[in-house]
Order: sequence, then structure tokens, then C-alpha cells
Amino acid sequence: MTKILTTGDIAKAIGGKLVGDDGIKISRVAHPADVTGEGDIVLAIDDKLIPLLKDGSARAAIVSGGAEIEDGALDAYIIVERGRFAMAALTKMFDEQVFVAPGIHPSAVVEDGAKLGKGVAVGAFVYIGAGAVIGDGSVLHPQVYIGSNAVIGESALIHAGVKIGARVRIGARAIIHFNSSIGADGFSFVTPKPGSVESAKATGEIGAVNCGLVRIASLGAVVIGDDVEIGANTSIDRGTIASTRIGNGTKIDNQVQVGHNVVIGDNCLICGRVGIAGSVEIGNRVVLGGAVGIADHVKIGDDAIAMAMSGIAGNLPPKSLVMGAPAKPRAAIIEQMHNMSRIKSLIRKVESLSERLDGIEGVIKN
Amino acid sequence: MTKILTTGDIAKAIGGKLVGDDGIKISRVAHPADVTGEGDIVLAIDDKLIPLLKDGSARAAIVSGGAEIEDGALDAYIIVERGRFAMAALTKMFDEQVFVAPGIHPSAVVEDGAKLGKGVAVGAFVYIGAGAVIGDGSVLHPQVYIGSNAVIGESALIHAGVKIGARVRIGARAIIHFNSSIGADGFSFVTPKPGSVESAKATGEIGAVNCGLVRIASLGAVVIGDDVEIGANTSIDRGTIASTRIGNGTKIDNQVQVGHNVVIGDNCLICGRVGIAGSVEIGNRVVLGGAVGIADHVKIGDDAIAMAMSGIAGNLPPKSLVMGAPAKPRAAIIEQMHNMSRIKSLIRKVESLSERLDGIEGVIKN
Amino acid sequence: MTKILTTGDIAKAIGGKLVGDDGIKISRVAHPADVTGEGDIVLAIDDKLIPLLKDGSARAAIVSGGAEIEDGALDAYIIVERGRFAMAALTKMFDEQVFVAPGIHPSAVVEDGAKLGKGVAVGAFVYIGAGAVIGDGSVLHPQVYIGSNAVIGESALIHAGVKIGARVRIGARAIIHFNSSIGADGFSFVTPKPGSVESAKATGEIGAVNCGLVRIASLGAVVIGDDVEIGANTSIDRGTIASTRIGNGTKIDNQVQVGHNVVIGDNCLICGRVGIAGSVEIGNRVVLGGAVGIADHVKIGDDAIAMAMSGIAGNLPPKSLVMGAPAKPRAAIIEQMHNMSRIKSLIRKVESLSERLDGIEGVIKN
Repeated sequence: MTKILTTGDIAKAIGGKLVGDDGIKISRVAHPADVTGEGDIVLAIDDKLIPLLKDGSARAAIVSGGAEIEDGALDAYIIVERGRFAMAALTKMFDEQVFVAPGIHPSAVVEDGAKLGKGVAVGAFVYIGAGAVIGDGSVLHPQVYIGSNAVIGESALIHAGVKIGARVRIGARAIIHFNSSIGADGFSFVTPKPGSVESAKATGEIGAVNCGLVRIASLGAVVIGDDVEIGANTSIDRGTIASTRIGNGTKIDNQVQVGHNVVIGDNCLICGRVGIAGSVEIGNRVVLGGAVGIADHVKIGDDAIAMAMSGIAGNLPPKSLVMGAPAKPRAAIIEQMHNMSRIKSLIRKVESLSERLDGIEGVIKN
Repeated sequence: MTKILTTGDIAKAIGGKLVGDDGIKISRVAHPADVTGEGDIVLAIDDKLIPLLKDGSARAAIVSGGAEIEDGALDAYIIVERGRFAMAALTKMFDEQVFVAPGIHPSAVVEDGAKLGKGVAVGAFVYIGAGAVIGDGSVLHPQVYIGSNAVIGESALIHAGVKIGARVRIGARAIIHFNSSIGADGFSFVTPKPGSVESAKATGEIGAVNCGLVRIASLGAVVIGDDVEIGANTSIDRGTIASTRIGNGTKIDNQVQVGHNVVIGDNCLICGRVGIAGSVEIGNRVVLGGAVGIADHVKIGDDAIAMAMSGIAGNLPPKSLVMGAPAKPRAAIIEQMHNMSRIKSLIRKVESLSERLDGIEGVIKN
Repeated sequence: MTKILTTGDIAKAIGGKLVGDDGIKISRVAHPADVTGEGDIVLAIDDKLIPLLKDGSARAAIVSGGAEIEDGALDAYIIVERGRFAMAALTKMFDEQVFVAPGIHPSAVVEDGAKLGKGVAVGAFVYIGAGAVIGDGSVLHPQVYIGSNAVIGESALIHAGVKIGARVRIGARAIIHFNSSIGADGFSFVTPKPGSVESAKATGEIGAVNCGLVRIASLGAVVIGDDVEIGANTSIDRGTIASTRIGNGTKIDNQVQVGHNVVIGDNCLICGRVGIAGSVEIGNRVVLGGAVGIADHVKIGDDAIAMAMSGIAGNLPPKSLVMGAPAKPRAAIIEQMHNMSRIKSLIRKVESLSERLDGIEGVIKN
């Protein structure tokens, strides 16, 4: 099952310049501190790791343009200009997909009217609801749930325990990790008369209490584009009337909460533990750092970046770079922190001025 | 399967005033930007959406009291005074429950001694432990786990992948979403001698290290009242000696963490990503915004509201309105932010005073 | 099934001093407010609970060294010096494991080449991949997923819905709670040319946009030591080249996110909702309070404590005690909060100085 590639193959695939033997057989990518045998190629694109190559256990390595490799230290090395980008091609070559046998596992339950494309693999204990459609070549790992009339695109990879609700639509080449929940109902309640939150928003004080919470049902679905990846234990709620939408190429990390009616654009990066409240609109190529929170109905412009743990309460224009809670432009937060650090010396200065004034007033009086 | 209702039916159900034709057949609620056919009724209770009605594709709409509808723009419209409240009745009418066949799916495992009420539907791959009790009319979606001796009330709706631990008790009409975990053990450890956290609490410094963490087991259960809704990927831990308790009518969003021994009152709203540490006591009708954190043993009074991302380290009286971390009354935080914004000008003023003093001192010397 | 122990047994097991009858039969540990019968022993190690013992419903109790128990109030009581530590032994005695029948449940799927140790219990709907190894005496609750070639140590307790990915290694006596995800792929993407985050880090502004996100696959695994406990709905991602590692005895709460390549030492306590970004290194006996966030590549020294909701952006030396976001030493944050509280009076003082200066300048002019 292990793939074997030559140093020459690898150099070509990752777009690097090979120095030395192009025929060494490689079966594993290794960290410099963890070389285990002849078949290892060491990934040392961080120049700080180069000294670890000296012990001679590695025959081949991948290094950055600036690395200084002693003569004879390696039988072959591959020089790459953009190390992290080379890692994408490199790790893809050695990545082994967990096998799920094509066809429907005998333990799986596929309801009448579900349509499975060519080459679909349905694992053990998978449930596929009535009318669901699974695209060609998709793999459903064990214990996945696909609700009725949900549509999954071609070549999707749905990992164990993922739940996809009824009528949810997911594009081609989706990757969804363990135990994520796509298409639970939105969190939406209302009181017959204005309640505590409404009074607090209107007056700054709590002038009413919540009597009789009533549920607003979620009639919308979730619609997810192509090439989207969704991490483990993440939740994306369905919309109330329209659908919650996620654009093509967007990547979402673990434990992210996406509320009802949210619209996220293309090619965004949403890091772990982010929370996006209902009806937020996020543009294209937006980056949200870990644990960022966004209040409901906020609009975020294209290419904005919110640093980790930002709390975003208002709209952000395109290319905003914000941090803090409440979030402000990074420069403003840095200035604010600087100002705060000056309070102590300011207090001393004011005391000193006061003493000087006391002295002058004494002189004048006399 | 699609429900068909007339404009007259809908007006009556949502308590609105009908203008125009009461006999239009409606099969779908639509967002103004997404009208697809004759059977749509457009929800336009936000007046900003009214211009979207002009293109003539919609025959019927629901609007607020202040909306200006041109003559002939619609064949019928329903005026409602409290739009969001009308949405509750409206969405309920068109909500379609995902079907689970009544009875026990052939793939489900029901252990000896479990008792299922009348009309219970048990989906594929559901596991029901020995001695568990499922109330009349409850629906367990595929891949649900009900631990031994757990009790679920009548008409509960438990979505795919939910895990309910042994001896947990859940009231009537509960709704629990994908992959939530009710009744895992509490996070409770102790060292034989006082450890690092204890020394830090006592002295402000770390004077001891943690040697030999020992586990405190969770003998309590989780007891949840009637009409409670719990979101996806949420976790509610069991109590140590007594049970963790959640009152009637409380609604909990996705990815909420409720620690051991916590007591939450009735009709609370707990938004997504909230974390409630062990032994916290929360009153009735409390609202916790997204990602709020509450330290262990804190008590929160009735009708309090904590705005999103608040970090609550101390008790809050009833009707508190707090924000920030550490959380303070909203007015105090707003004043604090205002004061912070004045530091820069204060620095300039002090410099100017210093220069004036220099001048005066020069005059006096001479 | 209920265990029955005498007051004498209990006193011996928890290392307490028994006063009174050593032969009372005890079947349940009760909170003082919840005594239900003759077989209850009341846990009242918090002296504030002692008055609740007076109503006479309890015959036996466990109390602290300082408790004042009236003569005749109880037939027996056990005095313990370190109450929470006594709770560990006490709760362990009365803890009842949920039963899973030894052997493989007929509904479970065990792929060829998987090796199960002696006395292993495999519950309903469990999936065990090819080549996986389950240690002696381990219990896999229903709906667990064990990926191919994963290794679980002896006496592990894996609760319902847990997903353990291919090649993940977990030590002996692990306890993993509902719906946790161990071994999903890391969140790691790169653009062919430097993207928005890289430009922001380099210049403080967004000078580039993200074109063409490419995925870096995760070739590493997750390696977890012995005696580790992991809470519900927690996610631990696999490493990119090397493995994500968690040391012996470390305890992780619910809804924690551990990113790719992270290394956590021994005997740490990681509370609920903590987020640890990629490549973070955490020493031994570190305590992270609830919802702490740690930025990627940060190093945390042994015995450090981060208080709840800290946001850690830089390395911390051993025995650091930090709070706040961005996190600073606790003393520095307390001083900062004190300084902030003085701004208002400082503004008034500066105004007063200015007025005094006006007066002096008037005198001098004249």
C-alpha cells in the first residue's frame, strides 16, 4: 500500500531543483528529528532545522533556497523557493486515503428514492434518506447521516459521524470531518411582546422580561459550493426562509459555529472555534482567526482579516485588518494598548505638576 | 407532501390583517429576492425589502404595519404588527418534519427492559440501553444513543447522532440537534496535596505543582425540564453528587458547554459557543449572548443579560446587563471605553501644562 | 446492581476518621439537600452545608475537620482533612460503569486484520478498521469508529459516538467522552504566492489577496499517552509530517480544539472550550482555564497557568500565571485594570491644574 517515489519524481512534482541523486527511492516524508530509515525524505524547509541533518541518518531532504548544505551531508536534496507551497504538492503525493469499499456496505440503510452516482462508496452504518442524491465517486465513511432530499456533489469525502440534514446541498469535492453537523435548525425565538433583549437594545436597560418564548422554525436549507472543506465538530445551521450559503473554495476549521441565514463568500479561511451569529454576510477571501466572534447581521467586506479572538460588532469595509473585542483596526488597537501603558507615568507627571504648582502658589502668596 | 394553504388561512393563523384575495393557494414562504412561482408568499416584514416586491413576480406577501404597498402590486398581502412573532406561527405552518417510520427500525438495538411509549419512532442504528424509557410520540432519528435507565419525555425530537447518557432525564417536547452530548462525566480532578491553582488562588503566585491528578467520578445525572431545545454539538455534563439541572422552556444553541452541577432556570436563552463552568447557578429568563464564559460557582440572577463574549467572574444580581471581560455593567464598560479614548488628549494636555509651568517658573526665577 | 458498603468500609477507603457506628449500610452518596433514605451518606465537606444535616433525615455523613456536629445529629460521620481528595476515592467506590457485554456485538463491524485483546467489549454499531489494535479489557461503547491501523491501549473506555482516525495511537486507561474526534486532518492551506495574512504580518496592512488556496495534507497521526481523559465534542487534529502528541496523565475537557502538530506534556489540565492553534508546544502540568486561546507556534513552560479566557500570543516561561487578552502576567493585568480605573479622576485633576495655572498666569500678567 505504501507509495514509493524517486527523488527525481518528487523534485518534479513539487517544482524544486534537485541536487544529487535523482533515483533514491522514497516511501515517507520525515521530520528531521524523526528519521527512521533509508526511504525517508526529510522536510527541512525551515533553515533552523538544517543542523539536524548533520547526523547522517537522512539520505535526502527538501530545503529552502537559503539553506547551506555541507558537501556529502546528503545524497540528494531538493531546493524549493516557497516551502509551504511545496508542502502542498509533497503531502498530496504521500497522502493515503482511508479505504471504504465501493458500493453500499451491507449494514448501511439507503431509503427508497435515494440516487447514488457511479463509484460511490457507502460505509458501515451509513443512513441515506429518501430522495437524497450522492454524486459520482463520493465516499461516505461509517456512521454518516444524509437527510432526505439532501444533495452531495461528486468526489465528496464525508468522514465518520458527519450529519447532513434534509435538503442541504453540498458541491463537488467537499471534505467534511468527523462529527460535524450541517443543517440543524437555527436558534431563533421570539416573545409575543417585546422582551428583555429588545428593551436593552432600545434603552440600555432591562425594562421587560421574556414571557412565552416561541420558536421560529427553519424552512431554509444550507447550500455549500464546490471545493469546500469543513472541520470536525463544526455546526452550520439552516436558514429561516432563504438558505444559509457558503461559497466555493471556502475552508472552515474545527468547532466553528455558523448561524442561520449566514452568507459566506468564496475562498474564505475560517479558523477553529469561530462563532458567526445569524444573518451575517461575509465577502470573498475573508480570513477569520481562531475564536473570532461576529454579531448578528454584521457585514464583512472582501479580503478582510480579523485576528484571533476578535469580537466584531459592526460592519467592516473590504481589506480591513482588525483585532480586539470590540474589534477595531489593528493600528488603533496597538495605539490604544500603547496609550494604556502610559497611564502610570501620566499619573506621576500630574502629581509632579501639582507639586510644582504648590510651590509657585506659595511663592506668589508670599 | 407539500402543504397548501390559502392566504386567508395564513392571515388567520398568524393573526394578521388580510388585504386582497383570501383564496390564493400558497405552498411556500419565500424571501423577496427568491420568488420562484405562483405558490410563493413573500415575507417582507422588514420595510427595506418592500422595493423588491415591485417586479411583479410575487402575488402575495406578508408585510409590517408601516409598509407602503402600491395598488395592484400584489393580489393579496397580510399586515402584521409584530413581524418576528408572526414568523413563529408562519414557519410552524410550513415546517416539514423529517420522517422516521413509527416503530423500531430493524437495524436498531433496544436492550431488554427498555420501555417505549405509544407511537414512538426509532430510526436506523439507534441504540437504547436497558431500562431506558421513551415517552409517547417521541422520535429518535438514526444513530442516536440512549443510555441505560435514561428517561425521555413524550413528543421529544432527538436528531441524528445525539448521545444521551445513562440515567439522564429529559422532559416532554424536547428538541435536541445533531451530535449533542448530554450526560458525559464532569471535568473534575484533585491532587493529594494542594496544587498549582490552589496556590495561585491563595497567594497570586504558583507556589505548588500538580502531582498525581486523581479523578472525581460523576455520580449525578442531568435533569432537563419540559420544552427545552438544545443545539448541535452541545455538551451538558452530569453532576458529581447531585444532578446538573436545566429548567422548563430553556433554549440552548449550538456548541454550548454546560459543566457539572450547573443549575439553569426556566426560559433562559443560551446562545452559541457559551461556556458555563462547574456549579454555576443561573436564574430564570437569563439571556447569555454568543461565546459568553462564566466562571465556576458564579450565581446569575433572574432576567440578567450578558452581551456576547462577556467573561463573568462574579455573581450578578437580577436584571443585570453586562458586557466585557471581565464583565461589568454595560454603562460602566461604555464609560471605560470612553475614558480610554481620552488618554491621548490627556497626554497632550499634561505636556502643555508642563510647558506653561516651565514658563511661569522662568518668570518667577527672573 | 447497587453497591452496598458500610460506614467503616467508606472511612477506610477515603482515609477518614470515623465517629460513631461503623456498620451502617450505605448504598448512595447524597447532597445534604437531597437525602432520600436510610442508605444515604451525606457529603457535607463544605461547612456551609452542615446546618442542612439537622433535619435528621441523614444517618451518616462525611464532613471536614472543622465541622461542628451536634451530639446525636448523626449515627456516624467521617472526618476528612482534604475534602475534595476524599471525594475522588468516595465517588470511585460508588461509580457504576455503563455495561457493554464483553465480546463483539452482532451488529458491530470489525474489518479483517483488526486485533482485539482479551476481554474487550465492542458495542452495537461500532466500526473497527483493518489493522486496528484494541488493548485488553477495553470497552468501546455503541457507535464508536476506530480507523484502520489505529491502536488503543488496554483498559480504555471509549464512549458512544467517538471517532478515532486511522493510525492514531492512544495509551492505556484512556477515557474519551461522547462524540469527540481524534485524528481529523489539520487546517492547513497555502497560496502559490504570499497571501493576505502573510502581507499583514510583514507590513501591518493587507497588501495581497488570497488566490488559489491549496491544501496541505496531514501525513502525521495523533499519539496520546497513558491515563489521558478527553471530554465530549473535543477535536484533536493529526500532524502534518510528525504527529500531534499528548503526554501521560493529561486531562482535556469538553469542546477543546487541539490543532495540528501541537505537543502537550504530561499531567496538564485543559478546561472546556480551549483552542490551541497549530504547532503550539505546552510543557508539563500546565493548566489552561476555560476558553483560553493560544496562537500558533507559541511555547508554554511547565506549570504555567492561564486563567479563563486568556488569549496567549507569545511564549510563556515556566510557572507563569497569566490572564487577559492579550495575556500578561496576572499582576500586570491587575495593575492595568487599576490604572484604567484612575483615568476619570486624572482628567479631573488635570482640569483643576489647568484652572490653577490660569489663575497664576492672570496674577503674573497683572
